[in-house]
Amino acid sequence: MRNHDAGHTPVTVIGLGLMGQALAGAFLRAGHPTTVWNRTAAKAEDLVAQGATLAGSVGDAVAASPLVVVCVSNYEAMHELLDPLGGVLDGRVLVNLTSGTSRVARETAQRAAPLGGTYLDGAIMAIPQAIGTADAVILYSGPQAAFDSYESTLRSLGAGTYLGADHGLSSLYDVALLGVMWSVLNGFLQGAALAGTAGVDATTFAPIANTVIRTVTDWVPGYARQIDEGAYPADDSTIDTHLGAMAHLVHESEFLGVNADLPRHIKALTDQAVTDGHGGSGYAAMIEQFRRPSEARG
Amino acid sequence: MRNHDAGHTPVTVIGLGLMGQALAGAFLRAGHPTTVWNRTAAKAEDLVAQGATLAGSVGDAVAASPLVVVCVSNYEAMHELLDPLGGVLDGRVLVNLTSGTSRVARETAQRAAPLGGTYLDGAIMAIPQAIGTADAVILYSGPQAAFDSYESTLRSLGAGTYLGADHGLSSLYDVALLGVMWSVLNGFLQGAALAGTAGVDATTFAPIANTVIRTVTDWVPGYARQIDEGAYPADDSTIDTHLGAMAHLVHESEFLGVNADLPRHIKALTDQAVTDGHGGSGYAAMIEQFRRPSEARG
Ligand SMILES: NC(=O)c1ccc[n+]([C@@H]2O[C@H](COP(=O)([O-])OP(=O)(O)OC[C@H]3O[C@@H](n4cnc5c(N)ncnc54)[C@H](OP(=O)(O)O)[C@@H]3O)[C@@H](O)[C@H]2O)c1
Ligand SMILES: NC(=O)c1ccc[n+]([C@@H]2O[C@H](COP(=O)([O-])OP(=O)(O)OC[C@H]3O[C@@H](n4cnc5c(N)ncnc54)[C@H](OP(=O)(O)O)[C@@H]3O)[C@@H](O)[C@H]2O)c1
Repeated sequence: MRNHDAGHTPVTVIGLGLMGQALAGAFLRAGHPTTVWNRTAAKAEDLVAQGATLAGSVGDAVAASPLVVVCVSNYEAMHELLDPLGGVLDGRVLVNLTSGTSRVARETAQRAAPLGGTYLDGAIMAIPQAIGTADAVILYSGPQAAFDSYESTLRSLGAGTYLGADHGLSSLYDVALLGVMWSVLNGFLQGAALAGTAGVDATTFAPIANTVIRTVTDWVPGYARQIDEGAYPADDSTIDTHLGAMAHLVHESEFLGVNADLPRHIKALTDQAVTDGHGGSGYAAMIEQFRRPSEARG
Repeated sequence: MRNHDAGHTPVTVIGLGLMGQALAGAFLRAGHPTTVWNRTAAKAEDLVAQGATLAGSVGDAVAASPLVVVCVSNYEAMHELLDPLGGVLDGRVLVNLTSGTSRVARETAQRAAPLGGTYLDGAIMAIPQAIGTADAVILYSGPQAAFDSYESTLRSLGAGTYLGADHGLSSLYDVALLGVMWSVLNGFLQGAALAGTAGVDATTFAPIANTVIRTVTDWVPGYARQIDEGAYPADDSTIDTHLGAMAHLVHESEFLGVNADLPRHIKALTDQAVTDGHGGSGYAAMIEQFRRPSEARG
């Protein structure tokens, strides 16, 4: 594929929710002629004031640019919008930044074939406020030539990372990383709820919670190595020691009357690891619990 | 209380597990005359080679120093060791770095009275390898004069933070912060298990997971402010949008055959927030779910 990306490639953004508006705004600030469309046209007003062109139909929006970015609530909405269009994507690259699962992303790549053009799937690991900065990590998967061709244009949105030809990869990373994100947020909220029972403000608890969170990032590479090697020596702390402290977390949560579900889940999974003979292993051995389905533990 | 801390205060460490050995080693490196005791005496060998004195009994160990640090598996073990000693702690400061709950820490402060001396509770937010460096955060609570008196000696162990006179505070922070730690680790493991199904190594997944974890630390102060203000505007993303993506995480985990318990827990809690009318709020509104008991959702 030729590099279409010299100069200011025209772009189209379909879907102007919180995220779509941020995407279109970043393209505009980077100097790209930007066409936009949204089901509720009023959401285009600010962007039009900043220089965007509001298309009269989805078809017109797609026809306006060689690079078309879609960001709507879900894949069903995306299909409703694009499937009726026939071959209008011929010669264009469609980048779908709507969140979904890897299976649906792969199916969408198949279903996109009749639309012509080239389909890239993507996932945004950032809040709208970060779009347009290097802090916004955006993952892409699908044909590498299409990504390479528009890499510099896509860089207007954030730090693009190409994961591979399998269309499912960006969604897989997306859900995996969102799971990381919610886990960190929920851990903070659980802690803030506990500390709150002693009158400790969330803003007082936040800096020390952040210190702990950052400390864990120092351990992650070492645990990752243990996981890949399949050996989990307890250089720091055994799972038995963790389990003892997890019981305190459960008791403390129950005693203080805050939600104890997350503590109980943490402990139940670790109980199972001990049952499996990993009491003397390091925490990385917990990967074995996460790798397998959990019907039995409901 | 006089400052006993001029020069190299003699110290005693009782309990020489992974953590106790690290504590005694750090005192030795900082030049403190260090007396140690452990139920299994063999664990003192390395420390004795580094200059520690092995006491013949717990009583002798306590009698050897004005500052006595205990770090054993749990509070029961601590009581078994110290309760029989009578007034041997007179004039000394006992710092208990054993993990427990705030309730047990407060009870222990009561029960320690007959031992004489002054009781400080503490909690170590670090792995043994970090002890003796500024990366090791150690929390203390109890009489401030006792903490102030030995602050510089305790600094040999790590970055000491005094939380307040309530003996329960360090344990409360401890479990709250451990909950944060396990949540981050489990989030990483869930993500690594998911990415692993596509042949992505944990070491490949680790750096991008860490980027996400660090990004969340940028949001925590803002969410904390919203929590303290009790208002949760969705400046970034609504709970409805989160919930849509959580369904993907659940489906992806189930479809790929990895453990779906954590995803289901994340989603169930958020479903409840939507039921409570918070679909249009930002994620900080989830604090209300964490603050209350959860029998109904068991
Ligand atoms: N916000 C974030 O922080 C964030 C971060 C990463 C990824 N994402 C993902 O980005 C996508 C959009 O999120 P958002 O925050 O922008 O959500 P949003 O503010 O709720 O906007 C949803 C967008 O989808 C459109 N839409 C929904 N159903 C439609 C349909 N049937 N036909 C046509 N248009 C439809 C909406 O049009 P109307 O305006 O007409 O309703 C709106 O433009 C989601 O997949 C989300 O998971 C968001
Ligand atoms: N390791 C970590 O990363 C870490 C981090 C923060 C906090 N902590 C906390 O530090 C404490 C110790 O952890 P650790 O990692 O050092 O555990 P460990 O390696 O399992 O050591 C446990 C220690 O407790 C002693 N002990 C247990 N029961 C006893 C009893 N009934 N009487 C006398 N001594 C007894 C053991 O003596 P023997 O040697 O004779 O068995 C050993 O010295 C725990 O409360 C833990 O939660 C640990």
